[in-house]
Amino acid sequence: MKLPDEGQQLRIYIGENDSHKGKPLYEAIVLKAREINLAGATVIRGIMGFGANSRIHTKKILRLSQDLPIVIDIVDTSENIEKLMPFLNETVKEGLITRKEVKIIKYLHNNK
Amino acid sequence: MKLPDEGQQLRIYIGENDSHKGKPLYEAIVLKAREINLAGATVIRGIMGFGANSRIHTKKILRLSQDLPIVIDIVDTSENIEKLMPFLNETVKEGLITRKEVKIIKYLHNNK
Amino acid sequence: MKLPDEGQQLRIYIGENDSHKGKPLYEAIVLKAREINLAGATVIRGIMGFGANSRIHTKKILRLSQDLPIVIDIVDTSENIEKLMPFLNETVKEGLITRKEVKIIKYLHNNK
Repeated sequence: MKLPDEGQQLRIYIGENDSHKGKPLYEAIVLKAREINLAGATVIRGIMGFGANSRIHTKKILRLSQDLPIVIDIVDTSENIEKLMPFLNETVKEGLITRKEVKIIKYLHNNK
Repeated sequence: MKLPDEGQQLRIYIGENDSHKGKPLYEAIVLKAREINLAGATVIRGIMGFGANSRIHTKKILRLSQDLPIVIDIVDTSENIEKLMPFLNETVKEGLITRKEVKIIKYLHNNK
Repeated sequence: MKLPDEGQQLRIYIGENDSHKGKPLYEAIVLKAREINLAGATVIRGIMGFGANSRIHTKKILRLSQDLPIVIDIVDTSENIEKLMPFLNETVKEGLITRKEVKIIKYLHNNK
């Protein structure tokens, strides 16, 4: 598999407790990305945060230990990333999704 | 709350041990971001690193288990991010701050 | 040390188990970045992922607990980042490397 020089980075900010059909939403997104053969996905768990997925309207303290923020990073061509958007539109009820252009310098995997 | 299509991603690289008025600096930044109603913030702890916040000038080994790197990710309009800058200029004594343009595809939160 | 306003963010996606001369590859990359005096590097470990470094061709479940994804974030001038590329070309056998432009707002370190 080869990626061109110009790609996009898709970034999905959700919460650890967000779910889809009984499994964590971040897991559902990664499995979907793999099912449609995107080049890769990386899930990172934050240690603190607030946002669309964890906004609180009262003056309570930030939720530190529960519903931690999750960031999913996906890099592929703009065309391939487009294929994931319908699934995200359907499943991400709260959250932030950003896209930006990136230069892809190297993409390699062993053909095991 | 609605965000326009064009936004900025602010990224702050500091150390876990950096503090502000007796509390972790990353926590102070997140609380400030929330106080001024930014759309969201995510704090990620790295497992290794060096940089402005942890540069060492001798040939000692990298500090692996202490003062781990912290990355704070904030996405909002350029105008809103500007409002956080005075606080960062005052509190971030060592560190790196970057900004870049991002397309905001989706921003949703439940009105609980 | 001073950085100009315009910089680049280099992002390296590899696996936790990737190694170079008997040490973790991410550690080798950070040590190299420091040896050639790059401004900083941050290593983040993901909690789940797939990609160049962990593609699996069978229908097995994703490798969740082993070979976790590693992301290395390096910000410096385009010229300085270029100096790291030969080392990456030599050592990163599987993985994804991206570069993008960033505005550097602030870079400070104490002269201890």
